[in-house]
Amino acid sequence: MTAKLKTAVVGATGYSGFELTRILLRHPYVDTPVLLSRNSENNGTHNLADLFPAISGNGSHPLKPLSWPALKEQGVELLFLCTPHEASRALVPEAVANGLRVIDLSGAWRIKNAHNRAVYGFKDEGTPTAAEFTEKAVYGLPELHADQIRSATVVANPGCYATSVILAVAPLLKAGIVDRKRGIISDSKSGVSGAGKEPTAKTHFVSVADNLSAYGVFGHRHLGEIAEQLDLRADDLTFTPHLLPIPRGILSTVYLYLIEKMQPSDIEAIFRNFYIGKRWVRVFATPKLPEIQFSVNTNYCDIGFNLAKDGRRLIVVSCEDNLLKGAAGQAVQNMNLMYGWGEAEGLQ
Amino acid sequence: MTAKLKTAVVGATGYSGFELTRILLRHPYVDTPVLLSRNSENNGTHNLADLFPAISGNGSHPLKPLSWPALKEQGVELLFLCTPHEASRALVPEAVANGLRVIDLSGAWRIKNAHNRAVYGFKDEGTPTAAEFTEKAVYGLPELHADQIRSATVVANPGCYATSVILAVAPLLKAGIVDRKRGIISDSKSGVSGAGKEPTAKTHFVSVADNLSAYGVFGHRHLGEIAEQLDLRADDLTFTPHLLPIPRGILSTVYLYLIEKMQPSDIEAIFRNFYIGKRWVRVFATPKLPEIQFSVNTNYCDIGFNLAKDGRRLIVVSCEDNLLKGAAGQAVQNMNLMYGWGEAEGLQ
Amino acid sequence: MTAKLKTAVVGATGYSGFELTRILLRHPYVDTPVLLSRNSENNGTHNLADLFPAISGNGSHPLKPLSWPALKEQGVELLFLCTPHEASRALVPEAVANGLRVIDLSGAWRIKNAHNRAVYGFKDEGTPTAAEFTEKAVYGLPELHADQIRSATVVANPGCYATSVILAVAPLLKAGIVDRKRGIISDSKSGVSGAGKEPTAKTHFVSVADNLSAYGVFGHRHLGEIAEQLDLRADDLTFTPHLLPIPRGILSTVYLYLIEKMQPSDIEAIFRNFYIGKRWVRVFATPKLPEIQFSVNTNYCDIGFNLAKDGRRLIVVSCEDNLLKGAAGQAVQNMNLMYGWGEAEGLQ
Amino acid sequence: MTAKLKTAVVGATGYSGFELTRILLRHPYVDTPVLLSRNSENNGTHNLADLFPAISGNGSHPLKPLSWPALKEQGVELLFLCTPHEASRALVPEAVANGLRVIDLSGAWRIKNAHNRAVYGFKDEGTPTAAEFTEKAVYGLPELHADQIRSATVVANPGCYATSVILAVAPLLKAGIVDRKRGIISDSKSGVSGAGKEPTAKTHFVSVADNLSAYGVFGHRHLGEIAEQLDLRADDLTFTPHLLPIPRGILSTVYLYLIEKMQPSDIEAIFRNFYIGKRWVRVFATPKLPEIQFSVNTNYCDIGFNLAKDGRRLIVVSCEDNLLKGAAGQAVQNMNLMYGWGEAEGLQ
Repeated sequence: MTAKLKTAVVGATGYSGFELTRILLRHPYVDTPVLLSRNSENNGTHNLADLFPAISGNGSHPLKPLSWPALKEQGVELLFLCTPHEASRALVPEAVANGLRVIDLSGAWRIKNAHNRAVYGFKDEGTPTAAEFTEKAVYGLPELHADQIRSATVVANPGCYATSVILAVAPLLKAGIVDRKRGIISDSKSGVSGAGKEPTAKTHFVSVADNLSAYGVFGHRHLGEIAEQLDLRADDLTFTPHLLPIPRGILSTVYLYLIEKMQPSDIEAIFRNFYIGKRWVRVFATPKLPEIQFSVNTNYCDIGFNLAKDGRRLIVVSCEDNLLKGAAGQAVQNMNLMYGWGEAEGLQ
Repeated sequence: MTAKLKTAVVGATGYSGFELTRILLRHPYVDTPVLLSRNSENNGTHNLADLFPAISGNGSHPLKPLSWPALKEQGVELLFLCTPHEASRALVPEAVANGLRVIDLSGAWRIKNAHNRAVYGFKDEGTPTAAEFTEKAVYGLPELHADQIRSATVVANPGCYATSVILAVAPLLKAGIVDRKRGIISDSKSGVSGAGKEPTAKTHFVSVADNLSAYGVFGHRHLGEIAEQLDLRADDLTFTPHLLPIPRGILSTVYLYLIEKMQPSDIEAIFRNFYIGKRWVRVFATPKLPEIQFSVNTNYCDIGFNLAKDGRRLIVVSCEDNLLKGAAGQAVQNMNLMYGWGEAEGLQ
Repeated sequence: MTAKLKTAVVGATGYSGFELTRILLRHPYVDTPVLLSRNSENNGTHNLADLFPAISGNGSHPLKPLSWPALKEQGVELLFLCTPHEASRALVPEAVANGLRVIDLSGAWRIKNAHNRAVYGFKDEGTPTAAEFTEKAVYGLPELHADQIRSATVVANPGCYATSVILAVAPLLKAGIVDRKRGIISDSKSGVSGAGKEPTAKTHFVSVADNLSAYGVFGHRHLGEIAEQLDLRADDLTFTPHLLPIPRGILSTVYLYLIEKMQPSDIEAIFRNFYIGKRWVRVFATPKLPEIQFSVNTNYCDIGFNLAKDGRRLIVVSCEDNLLKGAAGQAVQNMNLMYGWGEAEGLQ
Repeated sequence: MTAKLKTAVVGATGYSGFELTRILLRHPYVDTPVLLSRNSENNGTHNLADLFPAISGNGSHPLKPLSWPALKEQGVELLFLCTPHEASRALVPEAVANGLRVIDLSGAWRIKNAHNRAVYGFKDEGTPTAAEFTEKAVYGLPELHADQIRSATVVANPGCYATSVILAVAPLLKAGIVDRKRGIISDSKSGVSGAGKEPTAKTHFVSVADNLSAYGVFGHRHLGEIAEQLDLRADDLTFTPHLLPIPRGILSTVYLYLIEKMQPSDIEAIFRNFYIGKRWVRVFATPKLPEIQFSVNTNYCDIGFNLAKDGRRLIVVSCEDNLLKGAAGQAVQNMNLMYGWGEAEGLQ
């Protein structure tokens, strides 16, 4: 047997970092990951199992301070960043300079177009390094960019909402059947883990339970990412996130108008053909629609649709686990491509 | 002091019937309501407080069989029907023949246009009685039809979803600013009490919790009701209900396109002017949006909106408690109009 | 009509302060309360309805800085403190010195016995003022101390858990049927609002949802309060709080052993006799047990019990809304007693 | 590689049957299980993935009618019964007569003592077959009876509550430190999947959400099973189940009194020694206590405890996933023992 891949995770104490660590711990071709913390409080003293008792009983998982020489010495080849986007802007170039490949789960390097990226207000915008890595980073959506991902040095892992919307719409746009001028609307709903682990007034149990709220209307960060991947003008896409009273899972209800009247079987064929051989997308036979429960705790993105009797109004529903296909699971799927393994390794 | 109004409720054991009974029990101008059950199991033997211990400690609330002579003898003037729509199709004409005014919470008599009504498949469709009561029934949305409601013999209390969508859209259509040709979309989400008290696989806790699902896509019964009240062609309105993992509350996210570029202040003025003097609609100052929690356990419909920077894409969010403004509270608001009382009596 | 009582609330922005304010706003004998904030951020600029949109549409509710002269000028007679216990230790003496009566919802003045109080570690312990107000404060449980409450200057409003346990056990101890030597156990479960509005890792939605956890085992602050009111040695009482994934409500399952074998009807008679004329306690006919839903959004404490066939092992279940009978509702019940009004005024 | 074990599952459409099927589908030493349905509606026509879309995309999983000759022909050696207890009373003897080993997840064969079993009211009580299989069945709690399980023909898989209570208490009783005369109390709380998939008024979302209720007080079926395994008189054990508003997970808070004053380290040593080499029990270092979230979606039973300062009052908290360690996971653990595999195979 060949040696297992050595990986490291920065930010394992967040929700997606923890999910990623759990997957890496059971991945057949990956060694026990090195866990790194940017938070000096956590360094050395903490065992990840103390913060997440769900993984206790499985050995010790100490959090160590990030040190490039130490990573080199340990033979680490691949670095996962589960860090805020500003942190990733700095860490990705350093990691590459130290000879590592990187999968960055933040929004730091996902967007090529400066206009679409403006909402982030990156401080290093305009520097040569920023330009270099914007160019270098591959958008890590395996169903669209598998070939580029295989050889990538830097993979920008997609946003959770973005994954659910892009996978619902891309096959239809590619087929040229969507009336773009009438606009595309994604009414998306996410569980609370998507908002991160930071305790805030918004994530307090009493604020979320028995409630639903829209937020980030017309201004969510994932908007530019979606528009860019779908090659849409930002104004042709309306994206409204809502906060659901559930821990995890995303459902996007996407509204599109077709150029010409079509049959449901035409639409289903488009989806099925597009996703042939794509291990982690399940296309539902119309009129059956996915529900959040079906994909939670899996790496699937589930897609279903209903076509109105007028043959023109199309509703696509896509569901995924925001921490898996929307974050950590997709990161592992990208790793599997980068190292020539099956896309499902470690994810079943 | 003048005598209190004598009322009766058929179907007090359902969710909206129970909420209605609670309100009537504390209404200052209404006598203790007579509770009637169509279910012979419940007759006589059961006290409503046995089924809903939340109201125990408040006297006895026996359920009696429905008898027109008994109602006459007790001096009942107003009958509330919290019954399935087929039952209401039969009971409303009988009640009127017995000299009662009726507020019917079902979908039996809400829709004038036969095409919009077809989804119900009423068995008495085409009979003279059906024609007579279709004509006679007043759609009980006080913010639109207060004058007709005041003098109505039969009030068809609106659907819960319908209330949330109509109140969000009517002011904009009246102002003539909506591009109807581009279509109106309402992505609506409701708590489980909207699905009724019948235990089914769909309402099982394990099916609903940690989940979200779309249902009734392109075919929900409230679609025709909304289209008719808004004077839209059914095909110009896309309405998608979703089942939320919460007991009560509705949030509708409504997407519209404006004919001309406008300012947020223009839109806010349209809403505020339309709802002047309307006690139970709260218009939020943009960009603040309502959340379900704000209106649960109240009779309010809350309305807020965001306008895109392009000045053309408008998102309206409306929230209400589906059992109050969406059912029992609105029924009492209608009663208040019918008897010349303040619209807030019993509802504060 | 006589003038309405003028009241003020410090801490209206917390959960119990907000509930209290809602009740006072609709209380028939109380003027619109003056809302005071200790938090300078909130002063002047904020309207309570901005923080809690649920009460918007009901006039303006500005938060003002606390000033004793201003309160005097406004004619305020009664002050409610919804403040942390250390704050209440300082504010209560000041308020009394300024001629006010006070209902303090914190744990500052509930416990007479220094040993039972030690867990709080009050900084002013041992001062003459502390001694004076410890003596002066009346424990505000109306079902036990109505006469003292009527004439009290300072009412120490009970803890939420304490209310649920004391009301479940006091009738049995008074009847002398409990084998105290075998110990009394209360396994109590509370909704998250009991933990306060502060966002913490513990109150994050993802930490609470789909979960249950015990906390404060053998060391919760309410232990001494319960023991003192029930005249138990702290070691004879085992009290285990648990955090439930619901916004509000408490259920306590209390385990006791009887000295002699008894019949269920004997036990029911003891409860019923003890609570004759007590408006806000509902005794359930055995074997029916209360559930949290029955009392949420009411001021009731519901009590039911089951007796084992051996006639010796007794389980009492009590339920209440932790923000109402467990906090704000009980405070209003106390006010009603202090001013000679019916115990239910404002609470129905 | 040797041939994989051929298994069949009766009742794969229930919650525990479905979980079991999921585990068997990925178990390295088990062939794709044959899925059998007692419900003729499901036979032939249904694919399990249609009922549980969560497993779609994974091949077809047809439900077939139960036929002993067909099972023999397919080479099935081990039968799992996820059937109601009365069904298992009939099926287990038939299966053994047909040469199969059986793991029965129902309560049919768990209890040896007729008195403890009486609550079930089995119709075949007293027949020679009943006596034979009562004798033959091994109680399938691997931490207590691994040797017997290895060679068993019939394994009676423990109840979910019973597992959580027995594992919390058995080490302490074996150590002889518990004052049995003072009684043992288990206040247990379970998620709704424990109540089964049947839609009822009790399992309706609106009945469960925002609620907590005790049920089966002094009379739950698992009481006799627990008492028998712990060798307690039923009257020395008080067991109170509660229904939690969560889909899955059990937390039992167990109250015991020690014969002599002890130190926490003594107790921790007793637990740790008892569970040495037991793969699926995690003992927490006191005072840390398990929470339901830690073990959901795992096969662990987590155990922690707190000892009062008096050194006599002990509270043990145990948590598990009621569908895994409390049902399907434990069944697989038993299968692993029966076939000489590692206890963790298929469960990681």
